[in-house]
Amino acid sequence: MIAEILSTGDEVRSGALVDSNSAHIAEVLEEAGLEVTRHSTVGDDLAAISSIIKEISARADVAVVTGGLGPTTDDLSAEAAAMAAGTELYEDKSALLLIENFFKKRQWLMGSLNKKQAMLPKGSKCLENPVGTAPGFAVRIENCLFFFLPGVPSEMKKMLSEKVIPEIYTLQGGIREYSLVRDLSTFGLGEAAVNENLLSVIDDYPGIKLGLRATFPEIHVKLYAKGKDEKKVSEILERATGSVLENLGNRVLSTKGEPMELVVGNMLKSRKATIAVAESCTGGLLSNMLTNVPGSSDYFLFSGITYSNDSKIKVLGVRQVVIEEHGAVHEETAKEMAVCARRIAGATYGLSTSGIAGPGGGTEEKPVGTVCIGLATPSEAKGFRFNFQFGDRLMNKKVFAVMALDVLRRELLK
Amino acid sequence: MIAEILSTGDEVRSGALVDSNSAHIAEVLEEAGLEVTRHSTVGDDLAAISSIIKEISARADVAVVTGGLGPTTDDLSAEAAAMAAGTELYEDKSALLLIENFFKKRQWLMGSLNKKQAMLPKGSKCLENPVGTAPGFAVRIENCLFFFLPGVPSEMKKMLSEKVIPEIYTLQGGIREYSLVRDLSTFGLGEAAVNENLLSVIDDYPGIKLGLRATFPEIHVKLYAKGKDEKKVSEILERATGSVLENLGNRVLSTKGEPMELVVGNMLKSRKATIAVAESCTGGLLSNMLTNVPGSSDYFLFSGITYSNDSKIKVLGVRQVVIEEHGAVHEETAKEMAVCARRIAGATYGLSTSGIAGPGGGTEEKPVGTVCIGLATPSEAKGFRFNFQFGDRLMNKKVFAVMALDVLRRELLK
Repeated sequence: MIAEILSTGDEVRSGALVDSNSAHIAEVLEEAGLEVTRHSTVGDDLAAISSIIKEISARADVAVVTGGLGPTTDDLSAEAAAMAAGTELYEDKSALLLIENFFKKRQWLMGSLNKKQAMLPKGSKCLENPVGTAPGFAVRIENCLFFFLPGVPSEMKKMLSEKVIPEIYTLQGGIREYSLVRDLSTFGLGEAAVNENLLSVIDDYPGIKLGLRATFPEIHVKLYAKGKDEKKVSEILERATGSVLENLGNRVLSTKGEPMELVVGNMLKSRKATIAVAESCTGGLLSNMLTNVPGSSDYFLFSGITYSNDSKIKVLGVRQVVIEEHGAVHEETAKEMAVCARRIAGATYGLSTSGIAGPGGGTEEKPVGTVCIGLATPSEAKGFRFNFQFGDRLMNKKVFAVMALDVLRRELLK
Repeated sequence: MIAEILSTGDEVRSGALVDSNSAHIAEVLEEAGLEVTRHSTVGDDLAAISSIIKEISARADVAVVTGGLGPTTDDLSAEAAAMAAGTELYEDKSALLLIENFFKKRQWLMGSLNKKQAMLPKGSKCLENPVGTAPGFAVRIENCLFFFLPGVPSEMKKMLSEKVIPEIYTLQGGIREYSLVRDLSTFGLGEAAVNENLLSVIDDYPGIKLGLRATFPEIHVKLYAKGKDEKKVSEILERATGSVLENLGNRVLSTKGEPMELVVGNMLKSRKATIAVAESCTGGLLSNMLTNVPGSSDYFLFSGITYSNDSKIKVLGVRQVVIEEHGAVHEETAKEMAVCARRIAGATYGLSTSGIAGPGGGTEEKPVGTVCIGLATPSEAKGFRFNFQFGDRLMNKKVFAVMALDVLRRELLK
């Protein structure tokens, strides 16, 4: 079945807002076994929306439309759909009830404009919005079943998975294809190298579609399997996953697509271990990533962001002689920083970064992109040096922080 | 003049990649005085690309197409354009020379496939790509002038501004409209409140288009002015900017669209002041934001991320009795943290955060979203308490960090 995606709204049309909705919808629809052939975007313009809906109705079996369901005069999707279908709007009782209940529950005053949100094209089915005021609706125009959803990403996502996908499964009826996905997060190889390492998987599993997705600096390997027999699809996906693991080894962080900070956090938690950090070049990013994980206060004790040498010495207790002898960016200094952070906080592990994120500060010997990482464990302390060539300050900070976490992860894997 | 945007590629079509190119192109084209009416996306499919190019050629005066210019068999844009134009490909000598020079300069080996990138539809004009191997091209199909650019954002952006926009100005000839934009970053009011405060600006300057763009938690006010007389356009934009400043006061961070961390960084730098930070709930984010600014080592000395009470006492030197009396999340504790951070690092200012980012840890008295901020200056120390209702941990961390920087910014404005 062919699917198209339409996003409406002047903000997206004019480029004030990047349309991330369409990518999410495309991914979900493809995972449900549909073939997404086209996305379109038009502004808040009745004629433009209605005319593109008519075009889509002649091409696709299913369409998901976002935006234009709000209470203001700019919100034109229902009217445009009615126009394209050659029908009129009516006040949908169930939609009105949903809106009234939304306000009642929150003890908010319902504006008179909100009543407009219950006006749907004749022949529609109202789709409940569990998180916002705007109910969506499904309506058939020509041979295409249209799903109209709000543009707010959190509302759209919830309604897509809870309301639209079940309807699509019903639509597919007996001929439904099961479509399963595995998401393996990896770190340590570039996209081309990951691809090269997985050539045999592609050969051995012709039924599996393999996609690489970079969420810098991690590369996600996504395995897609399709078929009519759910058990078989699941089995082949398991085997292909095993084959990826064999080929990439401990460069795979998680077979559930988890990012580095969550993987390391879970490892620390399950070992009842704690961590203290000393950051120089990463400037707080490493700590910020660790503390983005809910519940991280269980294992994250302290981080000293010691940009100046003075603060490395005074706050962390790094020996002046170490910095004088080796400089701030050095394995020995990083090692000492990790040891000091661990000691100060009484943590199981100490982790540190010192490097040159750029754009300034590089030398011939230590160019921009150089990072030294220190790791202190209950039994020893180690220093490492790496060099990255991304050039950009923010990318360097990011890859330095993830690299440091990877050093700890590999230690925890032992 | 009507413009459309087409992005091609299976990654964008399937949702593996969010199409941020189209938003950038739309913004640039609108600023050049064009009216962008539609964006479309199709996959790496010859028939699909060629058929949508034909559709666009019947609707638009100008179109920008991205993707499909690479050397592999997936790269089909030139072929699809030739097909839509009813013409053939030829080897463009200037394109071939550009590709050969690209490889020569870098002393790389040119692959035989790269020769394919010089095959352009008859009647095209080659557009140099200063950063990559793929030259673009411009070709007229029906009444529409198409610009084909690479999909790599950095290459596309450079070619759009350096090659496409000048061609569009030529196209507009005598009737060219000047289009100027002002971007004012603000913090402290929600989108609806900013809008309400600017109603008089909308009334007083009917020639100015006003757009609001949220880059959480900042709201950018964008003023667009258009006209044939550049000086007049510039004058009216200045006056409208002045009116926004009058209405929003010191909630405006910058009239150059600068984010909070850059504004505060520049203020510290120009005052030759330094800063030390003590973070609890923001977990490194505040320091990370500050150190994202190149050159921040001039004023950023130290940050202690003291998640545990123990580290607040042992590392920062917060008095145990203050925490015992008030708790970790309290104005008095935040004040003491700021004073300690300032003292330890010998900085001009000390800034601190202590709060509840969630999802756990909230109480009736101090619900999730509560943050206490401390500020220590050379002459005094202050504590503040704020409450935000975003619910989400990452949003809370972000608004807490920006709020803390705003407390410092307002102090520096005095």
